[in-house]
Amino acid sequence: MANNIVPLNELISQFERLPGIGRKTAQRLAYNILEQPPERAEKFAEALVNARRKIHFCKVCQAFTDTEVCGICADETRDKTVICVVAEPKDVMAFERTREFNGLYHVLHGVISPLDSVGPDQLRIKELMARLGSGEVKELIMATNPTVEGEATASYISRLVKPMGIKVSRLAYGIPVGSDLEYADEFTLARALEGRNEI
Amino acid sequence: MANNIVPLNELISQFERLPGIGRKTAQRLAYNILEQPPERAEKFAEALVNARRKIHFCKVCQAFTDTEVCGICADETRDKTVICVVAEPKDVMAFERTREFNGLYHVLHGVISPLDSVGPDQLRIKELMARLGSGEVKELIMATNPTVEGEATASYISRLVKPMGIKVSRLAYGIPVGSDLEYADEFTLARALEGRNEI
Repeated sequence: MANNIVPLNELISQFERLPGIGRKTAQRLAYNILEQPPERAEKFAEALVNARRKIHFCKVCQAFTDTEVCGICADETRDKTVICVVAEPKDVMAFERTREFNGLYHVLHGVISPLDSVGPDQLRIKELMARLGSGEVKELIMATNPTVEGEATASYISRLVKPMGIKVSRLAYGIPVGSDLEYADEFTLARALEGRNEI
Repeated sequence: MANNIVPLNELISQFERLPGIGRKTAQRLAYNILEQPPERAEKFAEALVNARRKIHFCKVCQAFTDTEVCGICADETRDKTVICVVAEPKDVMAFERTREFNGLYHVLHGVISPLDSVGPDQLRIKELMARLGSGEVKELIMATNPTVEGEATASYISRLVKPMGIKVSRLAYGIPVGSDLEYADEFTLARALEGRNEI
């Protein structure tokens, strides 16, 4: 016999629907909510509804924002000649953490994946092409994941954009900083050799 | 520069306050909420508030319930002569999953831990003693964790209860089922030897 407390089971199953959260973790999290003051649950609930209601896609770069145009697109100090093209909104944050990139972004919201019936029309490629129309953009950095689908998407966009005289680049492949060669797979090592730099 | 979307940061920090959820996982979970239909966030929020509002402690055994007396205490088919004493509400569910125990439970809501300034008065020991008054209970099974605090709590309660002529037992120590002897620590192995059974 499992527990038969309906509101508890409902909360557990809500936690369980989150990515990477299994049954046991979901139970642990639900019990944690019950053990804390009611204000905690209310604040959490408010944050969930608020985030989902107030956040939408930036009408320029398609990243998440709570304003009409996101902070990055609206920032006058950023280099408007380079656009880094990523698959998901969270990838923007990953690049921002590096503090090395001062250009703009464009979020595709997915990658071309015929197996999941995602074609170019399901991605925000039209919106990207519209941004290139002004002639201000000189370079697109294709920063999709180094997977088959990520590569296919990068080369699809590259074929569309190159005739417009815009430079298209791809993130470098190589061994991750701080990793151990012993654990690098052969494809990564081969690409690291191929892309070696003089020191 | 990290993101400066206030509602998103608020949601991330709410996830981050859950036990075992770090910054990166919290971000992943928050983005997952944004990627799904608004109804998902609303259902989740409702489940949080509902669970916290409707669930309270059973007035008999102190486990979580949404009724005055929990389903286990109210169940006429259960053996009212045995009480399994556990530290946390979630331990009740762990025993229920075994389907091997048909008695009642009592939840202490903690263990005696002088370092965290938790003494016997902070636990639901008074409520346990009140249940023993009727003379119906014949055995207490002390099922606190096999830690120093768990042991101390078990022996504290045992000293209180034994003079009342109630049998007090403790969970068996030994090697976990399906485990490998190679990984058992010496204390567990010593206890497993000590508690060996004829076959």
